[in-house]
Amino acid sequence: MSIKRKVAVLGASGYTGSDAIRLLARHPNVEISAVTANSHAGKPMNEVFPHFFVLDLPTLVEWEKVDWTRLDAVVCGLPHGTTQDVIAAVLKANPGIKILDMSADFRLRDNAAYAQWYGHEHRAPHLQQEAVYGLTEFYRETIAAARLVACPGCYPTAALLALMPLVKARLIDAGDIVIDAKSGMTGAGRGLKQNTLFSESGEGLSPYAVGTHRHAAEIEQELGVAAGAPITVNFTPHLIPMARGELCTCYVRLSGATVDDLRATLERAYRDEIFVHIAKEGVIPQTLNVRGSNYVQIGVFPDRINGRAIVIATLDNLVKGSAGQAIQNMNLMFGWPEATGLEQIALFP
Amino acid sequence: MSIKRKVAVLGASGYTGSDAIRLLARHPNVEISAVTANSHAGKPMNEVFPHFFVLDLPTLVEWEKVDWTRLDAVVCGLPHGTTQDVIAAVLKANPGIKILDMSADFRLRDNAAYAQWYGHEHRAPHLQQEAVYGLTEFYRETIAAARLVACPGCYPTAALLALMPLVKARLIDAGDIVIDAKSGMTGAGRGLKQNTLFSESGEGLSPYAVGTHRHAAEIEQELGVAAGAPITVNFTPHLIPMARGELCTCYVRLSGATVDDLRATLERAYRDEIFVHIAKEGVIPQTLNVRGSNYVQIGVFPDRINGRAIVIATLDNLVKGSAGQAIQNMNLMFGWPEATGLEQIALFP
Amino acid sequence: MSIKRKVAVLGASGYTGSDAIRLLARHPNVEISAVTANSHAGKPMNEVFPHFFVLDLPTLVEWEKVDWTRLDAVVCGLPHGTTQDVIAAVLKANPGIKILDMSADFRLRDNAAYAQWYGHEHRAPHLQQEAVYGLTEFYRETIAAARLVACPGCYPTAALLALMPLVKARLIDAGDIVIDAKSGMTGAGRGLKQNTLFSESGEGLSPYAVGTHRHAAEIEQELGVAAGAPITVNFTPHLIPMARGELCTCYVRLSGATVDDLRATLERAYRDEIFVHIAKEGVIPQTLNVRGSNYVQIGVFPDRINGRAIVIATLDNLVKGSAGQAIQNMNLMFGWPEATGLEQIALFP
Amino acid sequence: MSIKRKVAVLGASGYTGSDAIRLLARHPNVEISAVTANSHAGKPMNEVFPHFFVLDLPTLVEWEKVDWTRLDAVVCGLPHGTTQDVIAAVLKANPGIKILDMSADFRLRDNAAYAQWYGHEHRAPHLQQEAVYGLTEFYRETIAAARLVACPGCYPTAALLALMPLVKARLIDAGDIVIDAKSGMTGAGRGLKQNTLFSESGEGLSPYAVGTHRHAAEIEQELGVAAGAPITVNFTPHLIPMARGELCTCYVRLSGATVDDLRATLERAYRDEIFVHIAKEGVIPQTLNVRGSNYVQIGVFPDRINGRAIVIATLDNLVKGSAGQAIQNMNLMFGWPEATGLEQIALFP
Repeated sequence: MSIKRKVAVLGASGYTGSDAIRLLARHPNVEISAVTANSHAGKPMNEVFPHFFVLDLPTLVEWEKVDWTRLDAVVCGLPHGTTQDVIAAVLKANPGIKILDMSADFRLRDNAAYAQWYGHEHRAPHLQQEAVYGLTEFYRETIAAARLVACPGCYPTAALLALMPLVKARLIDAGDIVIDAKSGMTGAGRGLKQNTLFSESGEGLSPYAVGTHRHAAEIEQELGVAAGAPITVNFTPHLIPMARGELCTCYVRLSGATVDDLRATLERAYRDEIFVHIAKEGVIPQTLNVRGSNYVQIGVFPDRINGRAIVIATLDNLVKGSAGQAIQNMNLMFGWPEATGLEQIALFP
Repeated sequence: MSIKRKVAVLGASGYTGSDAIRLLARHPNVEISAVTANSHAGKPMNEVFPHFFVLDLPTLVEWEKVDWTRLDAVVCGLPHGTTQDVIAAVLKANPGIKILDMSADFRLRDNAAYAQWYGHEHRAPHLQQEAVYGLTEFYRETIAAARLVACPGCYPTAALLALMPLVKARLIDAGDIVIDAKSGMTGAGRGLKQNTLFSESGEGLSPYAVGTHRHAAEIEQELGVAAGAPITVNFTPHLIPMARGELCTCYVRLSGATVDDLRATLERAYRDEIFVHIAKEGVIPQTLNVRGSNYVQIGVFPDRINGRAIVIATLDNLVKGSAGQAIQNMNLMFGWPEATGLEQIALFP
Repeated sequence: MSIKRKVAVLGASGYTGSDAIRLLARHPNVEISAVTANSHAGKPMNEVFPHFFVLDLPTLVEWEKVDWTRLDAVVCGLPHGTTQDVIAAVLKANPGIKILDMSADFRLRDNAAYAQWYGHEHRAPHLQQEAVYGLTEFYRETIAAARLVACPGCYPTAALLALMPLVKARLIDAGDIVIDAKSGMTGAGRGLKQNTLFSESGEGLSPYAVGTHRHAAEIEQELGVAAGAPITVNFTPHLIPMARGELCTCYVRLSGATVDDLRATLERAYRDEIFVHIAKEGVIPQTLNVRGSNYVQIGVFPDRINGRAIVIATLDNLVKGSAGQAIQNMNLMFGWPEATGLEQIALFP
Repeated sequence: MSIKRKVAVLGASGYTGSDAIRLLARHPNVEISAVTANSHAGKPMNEVFPHFFVLDLPTLVEWEKVDWTRLDAVVCGLPHGTTQDVIAAVLKANPGIKILDMSADFRLRDNAAYAQWYGHEHRAPHLQQEAVYGLTEFYRETIAAARLVACPGCYPTAALLALMPLVKARLIDAGDIVIDAKSGMTGAGRGLKQNTLFSESGEGLSPYAVGTHRHAAEIEQELGVAAGAPITVNFTPHLIPMARGELCTCYVRLSGATVDDLRATLERAYRDEIFVHIAKEGVIPQTLNVRGSNYVQIGVFPDRINGRAIVIATLDNLVKGSAGQAIQNMNLMFGWPEATGLEQIALFP
């Protein structure tokens, strides 16, 4: 008989928090013991997310009110820039607790890079040292042994799964990677901003943060590790009029390899993986194939330009791009089968 | 140790069929042993539904090729008008097999009404006699004992769950029920019709089949049972630019009752139900609250017009409106807990 | 040679304001001389509405800074509750100026009703007395002669065009009118509210303000005039995942009339109208038929319930439901052909 | 006093045909004298496109029935592959008639390339010789003097407007152009195909024709002219869940130029153009800025990768991408101001 682990969800009033709850509520080995959202403290969850009327969740509280010593893990969906302080306090209260952070606060290993990209000094550099970048398929052992896992951004997850094996195997020119990224509107979060109103974003599409998006930092960090040298990528995101879904079309320059070599390398890299699938030749990934699930679909295609290839990766930005990957990591950290609680099949149509 | 029941999905190339597969593939007690779609025989399922690349499903076959004696149940998503013959043949091959029919072919008890609404004589009247109308919350015992269950249409499921207890308790005037129904595009099926192209239906809404929609027949059949007399309802459907979801706004005339009486009656009727929730006063049901799940949300509201009230019911047309209810019924028929395989929480956003 | 009239647009940073500008910018007889939006004063219009990069518009200013004596007309898109004071000041500065108000501030003739529905005392009761309800097809003469025209709400425009001739001719029971209304998201305005974020409203639909929507007040005011007695209607709005468009499905009880009588009455009432079209029998209005245009399409249908009928009206909530009707009224007030500047054909798909 | 030119619209039952009608119906100098659609011959236009209930159009006829000698121009929206024969017959009947072809049949100058890309031999090679590629901003004089103008594909229009001046001025490496293109669903036409059903395409996005899309042929043809040598581009289209709109994100390698050089060159190239606007530094084009209008918005952005830049172009695929450009060309051919009938401002929201 297994005892359920007690989990808290911090920042439960945003979309990464609510999708974490959706998945944790049906996870056989956990019990959602606390949910926090300071601006909504005192409210029941279904006032903040009406679709949770089917669940019996704790009332929302301020994070400061939680007794961390009684919990086993924390899935953290706080806004970027607020997590470092909170996590530091949580780990101080319970050094043995496991943290799955869905924010960007612990993703960048280099504190200088963090300060440059996020506009403030890292508030918990001592913790940054032990934080593990939570790209499950690449950092399994360190994740399993960690207590603080920084789950990657949604875009980086897709781009890195598509590109890391190729960069590592030196099949592509690491200095000429163009990532044209597309995301559904939940990628922009639940904050009240004009450009995310339906009237402003429905029925149209917009590139944004052209050349300036912070996810470039993570992508460059990890591809740099794979390449063994610093890398700069083009990363150009676009907002698409759909709620969920993310697709990265990566344009790469072949380095003494063929398109089939790329596909074979990816197939080899992910052969034993549950969640990462390499599409057969000619099959084109599309976001609806993985919506609501923790799966990732990647395809490789020839380019009309000689010496180039196209790698397309798609996932659900809230699942494998955030909450799903958090739970996949949590499963590792507790020694459970990695797919526990993550078997949902895509919701299509 | 439980042995998995073997289930076939007929007409697996349409949306009710694919959502049945989505739910059955994760049902702990069943094994999908056969999937049929005559026009796609020989193809793997993921050629017909790419999102099934994550599953290991049998290859599609023609229904005539299936050995029914080796199966325990059939979930049938064939087009209306084709099921009667097929089911007759299946039951002849294996009289003990359990049938969950998602088409309209066995929903109407009166063969004359069927011929009038569907334009042809019933092809299996002897089976119609034993067919049970599969509105789970109202026909549990007969469903559990049946071998042929006709799962209700999506719109009737919502309207009947909202109205049957009220008609039965004589709280509303059964002769003056107006049902303004709204459905996502999957309600129109996967057939190639101009009006369901994205370009024709996206970004706009259209009433359709005004005064002529066949679902009025089922609604009137069941409300007639509850009222103990024939009933005519207004049923006016509208196509909404979303994939899934259904919401019926029912306008009723009070019959010596108050709005609170209506709400209390519904609360009482569904007090022990897992899937049907009556919203607290003031909480307004919306389709996103139940998308992808088997839940139903119903709310009761006062009307500005004295003596009238508004009852709003929402569900996912492919789940509780079709495949989910089929599986809920199948669970009953096999003596399993009714919610087995149906615990998915709504996908929101 | 005609001299262009000088027009100002107040509250130009909202959707009714921007659609007024879209139409006025191509109106042959007007020149947009001033645009105001206090929270954006000093900015060029294309910073507030990027699609206006094609126009050469004045810079936004605070309304207090405008020299009203130099203008001929004002199209006002200020938020409800702020217009009364502003218009009073404008008319004081230039008593001869013509006001087309798109807000709700002057729509209700009865100040007590206004206070009850809008939660505050009318701030310009003396002006309310001369304000004309700007439902063009019904109040032509008074509109033409007025200086202050209160353009109706979007929902009331559709419902009243559909129902007023029928109530006036005593063909339907004025005490039993059910209006199930649907609107695109621009109907909710440009304010930052969680429920109008794409993630909250896309891909789903929600009823809202059930039984409490303020537009019931206008509908009842005007139908009461047509009926010669106070009226209460059911008015139940729903938000639909599209940007523009509005459709009201009106359920009426026949009063010694047939469905054909209703259609004939509407055809007669609007026979000479440019913008209001009665659909032939069997043709079902849909929002895409009129999107972006000032046209209205109305259809009449039999109801399965004996003695009832269904009247469906659709229009674009920002055009005939607001800015288009404002300009149609302005044309009247300046003695121009009513369709001047309003000949746009629907944008379909 | 000007006499209206008589125009026919061939293939009026598709989206390019209907948008041509939308624009021609309000063009001051033309009269729509005939509309053809062989599969709908005999029907009124509003049976094929309900939103045309506001217009008084001729009844649809078979193209063979039209007396071409009585017409001045033809706007042709026939399906690709059917136009060559038809146009040959039309020009034979009336050698002086002006043809604006919106299909692909006459876009490629090289008959061998045409056969390779479109799978059949060119059926009117003698006409291909005189056909002019109708990219207005680049071929004004020849268009004005031509009688057969092949309007470019929607994607090529955007990509070429963005890139031709840069290739011509040798500011970018013509051998390393990556075009990530996105289009609304009308780009896929009105044919009944499963992947364009709302249920299959709404709420998600899919790359398609990866590396194989025919528009690459046109882009390469024209950029080859600008470069003075054959060019191969990467052109990767994606279907987006919106009706209209197109955006090309072009990734280019700088050739001894800066981002500012690129922007300045484009500003210079289009300085006197009505319809092509170069966005100020930092302003990001989005499809809603130009929806329903003939305008094009282009922006230039720095790339994180040294030596690269990003050029983004957006337009409405049915307007400047098809019917609008056809009319813009027609205006030239008749000696009218180029913007006649094309002053519509974008429909936003």
